[in-house]
Amino acid sequence: MNDLDTDDQPGFIERQVRRHRAGDTAIAADNVGQEWPVALVFNGISHAVMMCTPRDLEAFAVGFSITEGIVERGSDIHDIEVFFRNDGQALPHAEVHLQVVQQAFVALKDKRRALAGRTGCGVCGIESIELLDLQPEQVPDTGFLARLADDAIARASRELPAHQQLTKLTGGLHAAAWCDETGAVRHAFEDVGRHNALDKLIGHLILERQDTTQGFVFLSSRASYELVRKSARVGVPMVVTISAPTSLAISIAKQAGLRLVSFARESSFVEYDTE
Amino acid sequence: MNDLDTDDQPGFIERQVRRHRAGDTAIAADNVGQEWPVALVFNGISHAVMMCTPRDLEAFAVGFSITEGIVERGSDIHDIEVFFRNDGQALPHAEVHLQVVQQAFVALKDKRRALAGRTGCGVCGIESIELLDLQPEQVPDTGFLARLADDAIARASRELPAHQQLTKLTGGLHAAAWCDETGAVRHAFEDVGRHNALDKLIGHLILERQDTTQGFVFLSSRASYELVRKSARVGVPMVVTISAPTSLAISIAKQAGLRLVSFARESSFVEYDTE
Repeated sequence: MNDLDTDDQPGFIERQVRRHRAGDTAIAADNVGQEWPVALVFNGISHAVMMCTPRDLEAFAVGFSITEGIVERGSDIHDIEVFFRNDGQALPHAEVHLQVVQQAFVALKDKRRALAGRTGCGVCGIESIELLDLQPEQVPDTGFLARLADDAIARASRELPAHQQLTKLTGGLHAAAWCDETGAVRHAFEDVGRHNALDKLIGHLILERQDTTQGFVFLSSRASYELVRKSARVGVPMVVTISAPTSLAISIAKQAGLRLVSFARESSFVEYDTE
Repeated sequence: MNDLDTDDQPGFIERQVRRHRAGDTAIAADNVGQEWPVALVFNGISHAVMMCTPRDLEAFAVGFSITEGIVERGSDIHDIEVFFRNDGQALPHAEVHLQVVQQAFVALKDKRRALAGRTGCGVCGIESIELLDLQPEQVPDTGFLARLADDAIARASRELPAHQQLTKLTGGLHAAAWCDETGAVRHAFEDVGRHNALDKLIGHLILERQDTTQGFVFLSSRASYELVRKSARVGVPMVVTISAPTSLAISIAKQAGLRLVSFARESSFVEYDTE
């Protein structure tokens, strides 16, 4: 592959913007969130293309591999290389090449999942209802929720915006943050896709060998099926979102024993019961 | 299949909500957007599962089939049947069975695309960058944009909220509306996934034999690749969104000759230039 550039992209790109207001037009510079096709290649076989913001792609690939069940643990991934192609000829894109344990690769081929995503997409490749995984893992009770500070959700709500630099620049990205029992934001990742932001966060925790059962996920988005499903897979005890949950997000969280908090604000939040 | 119920669902479901504020908890009833797995079955073969709000599924299936290039035109679909399964045993889900012309079915099998989506997902099934369709159709110039009223975007912005009943009830769905040259909202569809809302809208226009080149799409969401790509496929001359576009949405719109308007408000909007 030619024209490789292994540096992360900034996550945004400058574009000229024409602002129309009451019949007048002003021209200015503005920033737009980067959306690139990112191919995930396992042991030489291209498996999926996700539409993704081309930053933190190593963490993204690790998180995706684990939350999609391609590998069981970080140590199943032997090697990761990220290649950027931005030569001005074609639209810019990236490839992440992962070497995974043979057992995982065989299982992947067996699944015959040829999947891809767009910015809004979580996971894919399911041909029929029977193949859909609606039975999440049980999240282990490690006592984290019992230790959670009363004001942890309020604190995380207050702290998150300071970690949303790309959102401030572009007005259009999602953030996924990792918070400790006091609600302090410890890590945050941004992406044009909310599930990508979550995969980057989970991948980062795995790469740093942090315990994914000792903290909670705070998302700037709504909660849908795949965000709860991905979090449950690594034993996250609580997922907090700024906006609404879907009916299936509530059901899957209940099944997994994962606490789902919605419409989180500094002064309030809600929780939905199933039934 | 047993336990069929061929009625549309309401799009929301009542759930008990616990509202936490300043240490107090109040219990109330609230509404949550329905997210169901919806399988799309072509000529008896289950092809994709999308996470979708189970309303207007016939329009959804027609729109998906066309915007994903499975069929060329509405008349390539001979028959559609929608089956709901909500028996209390398994999680509720739906199947849409389509009979399409043999040529389309053969092409579909040839593509070997085994795709699925989540609420945030557009289209899937792409294994490698080479298979990704980054060359949109040229949108034909039918003179619609020249006839567009000066205040059409402002009018559509003002009118859209009245068409977002599910959003009002749940706080968490996306809307896709079809507007005429005066900016009047003619049709609107809602879904937990923005691309699903757009597919429902396009499918409805196709089913009603309306001209998809004589109007514009107004979306309550951000603009990413797949929303522009889907619109270009049916010749929509303009896509307007309330929030930000991604870099790729801007590029694809430019390539297609489709006008992309962002951050639409009653008093202002912006347009980004490529390069």
